[in-house]
Amino acid sequence: MPTVSLDFHLDRANPVALYQQISEHLKARISDGRLPAGAKLPTVRQLASDLGVTRLTIQNAYSELQSAGWIESTVGRGTYVSHDVNGHSFGRGIVALTPDAVINDILQLNQIVGLRSMASASPDARLFPAEEFWSVIAELQADAVTMVSYSSSQGDPQLRVEISRDLTERGLDVTPDDVLVVAGVTQGLALISRTLAQPGDNILVEQPTYLGLLHTLKLHGVNAIGVPLDDEGPDLGELEQAMLRHRPRFFYTIPTFQNPTGRCMSLARRLELLELCAAYGVLIVEDDIYGRLAYDAPSPPPLYALDKRGQVLFVGSYSKVLMPGLRLGFVVAPQRWADRLLSLRRATDLCSPTLFQRTLALFLRNGGLKRHLRRVLPIYRERRNTLVSALQRNLPPSVHWHQPQGGFCAWLTMPSYQPFTDLEQALLRQGWAVTPGEVFLAEPAQQKSVRICFGALTPDVINAGVDAVSKAIRERLNTVAEPVKSNGNWTPLV
Amino acid sequence: MPTVSLDFHLDRANPVALYQQISEHLKARISDGRLPAGAKLPTVRQLASDLGVTRLTIQNAYSELQSAGWIESTVGRGTYVSHDVNGHSFGRGIVALTPDAVINDILQLNQIVGLRSMASASPDARLFPAEEFWSVIAELQADAVTMVSYSSSQGDPQLRVEISRDLTERGLDVTPDDVLVVAGVTQGLALISRTLAQPGDNILVEQPTYLGLLHTLKLHGVNAIGVPLDDEGPDLGELEQAMLRHRPRFFYTIPTFQNPTGRCMSLARRLELLELCAAYGVLIVEDDIYGRLAYDAPSPPPLYALDKRGQVLFVGSYSKVLMPGLRLGFVVAPQRWADRLLSLRRATDLCSPTLFQRTLALFLRNGGLKRHLRRVLPIYRERRNTLVSALQRNLPPSVHWHQPQGGFCAWLTMPSYQPFTDLEQALLRQGWAVTPGEVFLAEPAQQKSVRICFGALTPDVINAGVDAVSKAIRERLNTVAEPVKSNGNWTPLV
Repeated sequence: MPTVSLDFHLDRANPVALYQQISEHLKARISDGRLPAGAKLPTVRQLASDLGVTRLTIQNAYSELQSAGWIESTVGRGTYVSHDVNGHSFGRGIVALTPDAVINDILQLNQIVGLRSMASASPDARLFPAEEFWSVIAELQADAVTMVSYSSSQGDPQLRVEISRDLTERGLDVTPDDVLVVAGVTQGLALISRTLAQPGDNILVEQPTYLGLLHTLKLHGVNAIGVPLDDEGPDLGELEQAMLRHRPRFFYTIPTFQNPTGRCMSLARRLELLELCAAYGVLIVEDDIYGRLAYDAPSPPPLYALDKRGQVLFVGSYSKVLMPGLRLGFVVAPQRWADRLLSLRRATDLCSPTLFQRTLALFLRNGGLKRHLRRVLPIYRERRNTLVSALQRNLPPSVHWHQPQGGFCAWLTMPSYQPFTDLEQALLRQGWAVTPGEVFLAEPAQQKSVRICFGALTPDVINAGVDAVSKAIRERLNTVAEPVKSNGNWTPLV
Repeated sequence: MPTVSLDFHLDRANPVALYQQISEHLKARISDGRLPAGAKLPTVRQLASDLGVTRLTIQNAYSELQSAGWIESTVGRGTYVSHDVNGHSFGRGIVALTPDAVINDILQLNQIVGLRSMASASPDARLFPAEEFWSVIAELQADAVTMVSYSSSQGDPQLRVEISRDLTERGLDVTPDDVLVVAGVTQGLALISRTLAQPGDNILVEQPTYLGLLHTLKLHGVNAIGVPLDDEGPDLGELEQAMLRHRPRFFYTIPTFQNPTGRCMSLARRLELLELCAAYGVLIVEDDIYGRLAYDAPSPPPLYALDKRGQVLFVGSYSKVLMPGLRLGFVVAPQRWADRLLSLRRATDLCSPTLFQRTLALFLRNGGLKRHLRRVLPIYRERRNTLVSALQRNLPPSVHWHQPQGGFCAWLTMPSYQPFTDLEQALLRQGWAVTPGEVFLAEPAQQKSVRICFGALTPDVINAGVDAVSKAIRERLNTVAEPVKSNGNWTPLV
């Protein structure tokens, strides 16, 4: 097989390193079959010269691809696309459409050779300020004795100071004593669910909502009832009906850049929601995990900041704004719940690692998070814009979606359920992973949906992914005899 | 007030740094009142000359004491014992004798100025191989993109390889696929309790047992029933009666270097226990957290290694052999439970931090744990010997205890309950913290007990602590009109 010729545009203004741009291009071509298994790649010297970069850049790109199994090098023979890229059974699909199975798949998808994942609502790990972070860790070796010991269950005091400072700047009236450090939003929600609800109880969620909470509730034996969303947020008429009918222990909402829809609840709706829940004595659990990832106008204040009655429990984390691997988040709750949450945290896993907590505290104190957000928000905005343009350009008009105003997710709703049931499996066979919409739903839906995530993907990958998704949808639309009317609940607003 | 004169012996063969030996000596004198608040300490130059060490050593010791609040320095005036050491209300005591309140106190005791804690069953953080550990962390910056991302919920594959290798060497037949990484034994036990037992169910525990499990069971609504221990382990006659009466979901045991007693179950008892539990179809949850900290003969194989029927769930961690701040442990369970445990872990906190998992994996692969144990086991053995000698020398003969054969704990049982009820409060007033025995008990006891921990304390602190404990016990014994007969269940074996 002759050496393939590679020619693509490198964006030198892009903060993504050149070697990563090159490896992403190669992954794209391998995934879509333009570079088949066994294809011979140019030599390092040749490709460096073609692209006008140093040989080290090409070596780094090849080395990343090789260690992840996409390509193979043999001394004296050259570099080839790995035969592994044909060896995977993408057609296996996602067997059981439960949140549990899907969470598992999402976490492992990035490790499958030949697959690109639009399934994980993650930040781009390549943008993480590793040097700054590791240098804080290194400094803390001087205080190793404290760092290797147990932390308090409520959380490292220095971290609680920084979290409360952070939240105060966002309009929340919070002191370090009010903050409970948790191992991410998943743990925060698990502690809250177990504290506020007993097995057999009902709680209300947005439809669609965060799949992790649905899984947590299921294992706790708590019933989730879905409340539909409109353009401004949860439909309050439906919410009131559900409160009357189900006597829920709380209403769970992601008001700002909702997962999976990317929507932001309007200020008016927030105020009405607080009034309505107060009238029925229903607590609100507010998940703010994407709250700082605003790409357009500033978002309205969190519900917790608007609340005057102590009816909101607030959960957030550093997984999306910084890195998921930290496993650090926080809960702020009215005093009558705070002690019980702390006690349950103690019974669950005692405390979070001291070294990571203190590292994050110093990183926040040094202004590291603000610097990082200033740098990455324009990049994520550009990716969002790329996604929106690609969706506008490619998607059939009968597919409904909403421009994400922040966060990492978009939610595409098909005009019907049939013939789209196998959409994510078909995409997997083509080397693309998206998340099946079913796992975000507390109630069955009439239409098929999928979630696609763009945060961790470069613009060219986003474009290629939307192409693949659109093509798969069109193929299935063509099998429908009659054109399907669009669904009024999901007006495209782009 | 004139400058006090300080004169004490430094042990240059001791791996504890000289500056730490000095700061420990000073803490001891401040705690017991020999150095009262306001006492003027020698200058750095003077003390360096008196003790024959460099000025840097004294500066380090003073600086540690100062940052922890024990002493105060004023430029031009000198260094004084802090007035804070009088400001604490040690008499506050531990108000509510619940495991929850006590866990909280244990975690915070080390931060109280003027107090020395024999309450925490922790390794000595000063012995931790910080340099080696931090250098592994530093290496992993090269793979930052992976390190800052989500891990799989089951645990980093490389860490599971090392854990299974470790367990195989201890006689357990375990593959990497069998290992579930958890955030410490507390989390492992919480996951197991929620998987095996429902609210209202009964489970059996040793009497006394690990207080963290009692707290976890309480919040889960599960009843713990205590089974007494004799010299070889749990009393199997009592265990059988309890199994018949309470139909427990499982029996929880710490066979090797039990917390809080330090005892090791004999091989014969292990084999009989497995037979008995098999006969009644009762699962065994084996907590091996102290299993490698053997100071005398090698301990018998874990129950999991002896089990032929898949009736044992095995939990362990690196908190005691390495560092608690890691928050990393593992569960190995028969396949029919493994999937449910993994699913519950996913619903609890998704996964452990990737960077810490991989750091531990490389540290284990490099032989770091074995090197560390070779270095620290002789130190802990010496501390255990110091404790045993001091208890033999000082304790009244009516106090019952058992020579700890491993781990960090000893368990002292008074001849009665009255007049010892205020024992831990009285010790707190004198600057010593011990753990009240009540929190380790599923059933009320006729005698007062306390747990004292020696792992993190140097021999001179252990001697001083045992002196204080013995004195407080004798004072209370003297208030008893009649000599109390010794309790046959707790024969002193030293």
